[in-house]
Amino acid sequence: MTGLHERFAAPVREALPRLTAAERAVAIRELDAMESARTAHRAGADRLLDGLREIAAHVPERLYTDSADVLLRMHEIAGSGNLQSNLSSLPLVRACFAHGLVDDGRERHEAPAELVVGRGHIAPAFYAEHYVRGTLPFAPLATLHQDGLTGVVHRDLGFRNTMRYSLGVGVAQAVSLAWELTRRGEDRKVVCLAGDGELHEGAAFEALRFAYDAGLRNLLLVVDANGKGIEPLAKPVNTGYLSAYLGRITETDGTDDRAVEEALGTLLARPGPAALVCRTRKGEHSFRPPADAGEAAPPRPVSFAAGAGRLLAAHRRRSGAELAVFTPDMAARFGLRGHVPYTNTGLAETLTAGMTLSLPDHVTKVVATDAMYYMDSLSMLTEATTSVRNLLVLAGRSWGAWGGAHNAVNLLGLLLHTRVYEPVTAAEFDACLDRLAHDPATAHVVSLVDAPITPPARDCSADLDGSVWLTPPDAGDPDAVVVTFGYAGVLVDEANRGLGLPHLHCAALTPRLGPAALGVLARARRVLSVEYNGADGGFGERLRSAYLLPVEVHAVRRDIATRVHRHQLALHGMSTPQLRQRLTALREDRQEAGHAPAYA
Amino acid sequence: MTGLHERFAAPVREALPRLTAAERAVAIRELDAMESARTAHRAGADRLLDGLREIAAHVPERLYTDSADVLLRMHEIAGSGNLQSNLSSLPLVRACFAHGLVDDGRERHEAPAELVVGRGHIAPAFYAEHYVRGTLPFAPLATLHQDGLTGVVHRDLGFRNTMRYSLGVGVAQAVSLAWELTRRGEDRKVVCLAGDGELHEGAAFEALRFAYDAGLRNLLLVVDANGKGIEPLAKPVNTGYLSAYLGRITETDGTDDRAVEEALGTLLARPGPAALVCRTRKGEHSFRPPADAGEAAPPRPVSFAAGAGRLLAAHRRRSGAELAVFTPDMAARFGLRGHVPYTNTGLAETLTAGMTLSLPDHVTKVVATDAMYYMDSLSMLTEATTSVRNLLVLAGRSWGAWGGAHNAVNLLGLLLHTRVYEPVTAAEFDACLDRLAHDPATAHVVSLVDAPITPPARDCSADLDGSVWLTPPDAGDPDAVVVTFGYAGVLVDEANRGLGLPHLHCAALTPRLGPAALGVLARARRVLSVEYNGADGGFGERLRSAYLLPVEVHAVRRDIATRVHRHQLALHGMSTPQLRQRLTALREDRQEAGHAPAYA
Repeated sequence: MTGLHERFAAPVREALPRLTAAERAVAIRELDAMESARTAHRAGADRLLDGLREIAAHVPERLYTDSADVLLRMHEIAGSGNLQSNLSSLPLVRACFAHGLVDDGRERHEAPAELVVGRGHIAPAFYAEHYVRGTLPFAPLATLHQDGLTGVVHRDLGFRNTMRYSLGVGVAQAVSLAWELTRRGEDRKVVCLAGDGELHEGAAFEALRFAYDAGLRNLLLVVDANGKGIEPLAKPVNTGYLSAYLGRITETDGTDDRAVEEALGTLLARPGPAALVCRTRKGEHSFRPPADAGEAAPPRPVSFAAGAGRLLAAHRRRSGAELAVFTPDMAARFGLRGHVPYTNTGLAETLTAGMTLSLPDHVTKVVATDAMYYMDSLSMLTEATTSVRNLLVLAGRSWGAWGGAHNAVNLLGLLLHTRVYEPVTAAEFDACLDRLAHDPATAHVVSLVDAPITPPARDCSADLDGSVWLTPPDAGDPDAVVVTFGYAGVLVDEANRGLGLPHLHCAALTPRLGPAALGVLARARRVLSVEYNGADGGFGERLRSAYLLPVEVHAVRRDIATRVHRHQLALHGMSTPQLRQRLTALREDRQEAGHAPAYA
Repeated sequence: MTGLHERFAAPVREALPRLTAAERAVAIRELDAMESARTAHRAGADRLLDGLREIAAHVPERLYTDSADVLLRMHEIAGSGNLQSNLSSLPLVRACFAHGLVDDGRERHEAPAELVVGRGHIAPAFYAEHYVRGTLPFAPLATLHQDGLTGVVHRDLGFRNTMRYSLGVGVAQAVSLAWELTRRGEDRKVVCLAGDGELHEGAAFEALRFAYDAGLRNLLLVVDANGKGIEPLAKPVNTGYLSAYLGRITETDGTDDRAVEEALGTLLARPGPAALVCRTRKGEHSFRPPADAGEAAPPRPVSFAAGAGRLLAAHRRRSGAELAVFTPDMAARFGLRGHVPYTNTGLAETLTAGMTLSLPDHVTKVVATDAMYYMDSLSMLTEATTSVRNLLVLAGRSWGAWGGAHNAVNLLGLLLHTRVYEPVTAAEFDACLDRLAHDPATAHVVSLVDAPITPPARDCSADLDGSVWLTPPDAGDPDAVVVTFGYAGVLVDEANRGLGLPHLHCAALTPRLGPAALGVLARARRVLSVEYNGADGGFGERLRSAYLLPVEVHAVRRDIATRVHRHQLALHGMSTPQLRQRLTALREDRQEAGHAPAYA
């Protein structure tokens, strides 16, 4: 395990300028304590949380006594996150602490129940409550989403479960645990903290239905019913459904700490399964830093993905196409509102793909969600790619705090009758739509990056399946060449400034290279491919397989972590300095063509 | 569109020996009618069903008047299928005909409702009912699963929807249609014929929840509640759940034609959504031909996949490993019963993967279903492959009547921390289990073919990630070599008998070839790879990408169709004569090394 200081020193230092003087003083003392703790022999403190508890005991001063205030400060310092989701669950989190469901380092003879947190992104509420209870220092709170604490629950940070991807997983984790405890003859309950939106997921239904049919007696589902995902839910959580599978339903005012604590205590004490539905309130889903007082807020840079709505509307005006747009609560991400009508299908990705199945041929069917959310719907999506015409699959690429799936686009690229593109200019996006109009039997997957993009000077819009030189080779065959896919083209373009390495760019995951470009690649001593995408089955490997070129593949090989974009870039060797170094080395290294390593 | 005669002549002729004299006489007359119809100009008869109706009118004699008898004969002639599922839905199907929900060629001013058949495999019940009503000839009925009529609903055969893969899709298709009709301001209802097992699927829940939340008023769900998937369901369909989302629930005796017809009529006439739950009965899931009277039944050849239970039990005895086995109703397919304890999770694949998430590290977690059923659970499976140790994923490979997914194994091969194998001997299967025990952090996907396999003389059990010569090269470098993955090794071994082409076999989708084998491949003028698996991202392309060898890839390029194994083989160029021809051509063709086509 990495020591506390190694893990937190850099992100805490980076956060210092955003702290108040009092916070800064405490954070520095805590860092000092971490540093001296690093070399000390500390028996038993082999877990991250234990170590943090020791630091908290060492610097016991509390700057805040209300965890709601702590949550606000954490989000102000981070500049992003889901403050309102955390606030809406805070009374539930406090009740979990009150009933001893959270490991706070005290001797617990027997935990009364196991806690599985299905609302994965409310980890900060637990950190905040730990802080005011004296079992977490302040400094780590300042590193949320910034390479320090993750916003999503993780076993390393005292949770029973780790969440990576989909909502709905928590209920399955809880039922898996309830089944295992039952099998072992233990009668402890499993408390699953879920959101009402999360219960839209088919996976959550499958778990509740199985728990009922299998006769599990030890599941206690606690629902934060705030009536809101990112947008408001169409209807409140269906208690008839919950009571059909869980029997006893208790409803309570989820904004009242005491009421929640009492209701949870009653249900914990009673035998048999149950659901506790807490009626709560939630404000704006994503935290936005307030504009500085007295100054006009600077315009926030808009992510490329958020331009989709505007581009779809322009396409509709231009082509007269009839659009039917379905999104599982991701309208904001793709900038749909005000540009195109859409149907919010709720948090149900498989249904979202399924909604296209019975529409008339002429309608352009658009489904829009995060690339990773399609991974539990590839069979349903295949139903669509094989039976539906005019299908546009928008695949958001979150390389930010909420994670992502580095292999998502490669998996989508293996579906029947499908082609994948990653446009980086409005013209390339338009070209994807035009291509679909000309080839409606092929589903077009359009990967859209959740980051602002400065468009390169040239693009593939004139030849979407081909390639374009962003930096053309000089006369004569170049010694080394870099070839890029999608967003990596923008990153390499910047890193290549002043280096002038010939740079061929593609918008297609599986490009069809013309003889001219192919000739240059074939005659170069070294060819490097760069993609901000999973290496396995990706752009570079496809080039190797299709053209038998000894391309060195620079791509994502680790899973995406939950940290903000610029930290993700560095994690995967995609930051500007890292890429610049890679390009420089390519030109300088003595390496024979054909003997280049398969993987760079 | 292929003419009727082209489509049915060969499979009907093949079936003739299995027909009674009376059936044979009729079938031949119908074939004759198809042949003369082929060249005639027939305005309007541009659809398959219309053409079949004409033949039925031309040969009006009916051999049977009860569609239950017709169903029995269809299954006796086919030798396989889901007779009991069809029988349990037959009264529902008859009620759909009675209320004009099925296109029988009569003028229908306005169909009272649209029919979506979610129980995809009850297409034969519709064919049988068409037959007794005089709107389908007899001959096609004799081709069920045998390259003629498909057992699964298809638009070409008069259904509103086509089903390919997962159960649960039908409800999404119905809700998609209900939404579209609502949007167009039409008040026709959508009747969705579903099974109680199918309602276990999360996709079905997502659709019903959305229909309720979106306020759709035109969905009428008809449930064949026979209480049985392949095994009996743990509990009857939960009507509390259905009424929470559909409001009005009517229950009726589903074995009583008149009761079903009346109840359906009542609900069709009433405004608003509803569910009709038909209590039915179902016998043995898979049809088995009865043994000939007076003779002992010959032993049925056992599929390789069905040996999994026995092999798992032997592994458990040998290693002392604790197993937890989860299957979505596929215990019979993998021969689990009587060999290892297992938990039937019902028809819920995402949950099945999810059930492994909270089990202790030391337990070997086995999930067992069809390879294609994982396609709607890849995110949940990734949760498992990244957070769980000792995970064994059994992926059944059905190349038979129910379809399959030619790309499933390649998609599974892209998951994090995963390796894919396709054993063809018991020793290779054991080697997969041993490998998992030594590398518990890597999920092992084991592709298991649903066909009897005669084991080859040698296998990869001693070096699971490597390769073995099934036909070794003579002294000196061979001119042409064939390299195979998994089951294709068995097929090529047979086709290669007498040819003696050097044949290198691998059990791993991504093998690590040693220098000796690699040297032979590199020096050969031509290398052919064969895999009974999707070409895109498969074994051959991985060899090309990893080793930059000009391997010619012989693999599955079309989707899997719904027909029996031996017809699938021919469809994909994998029959013995086809492979023999391919191998022969490899040795004889004049083609320069390095200039071989990327794709054979």
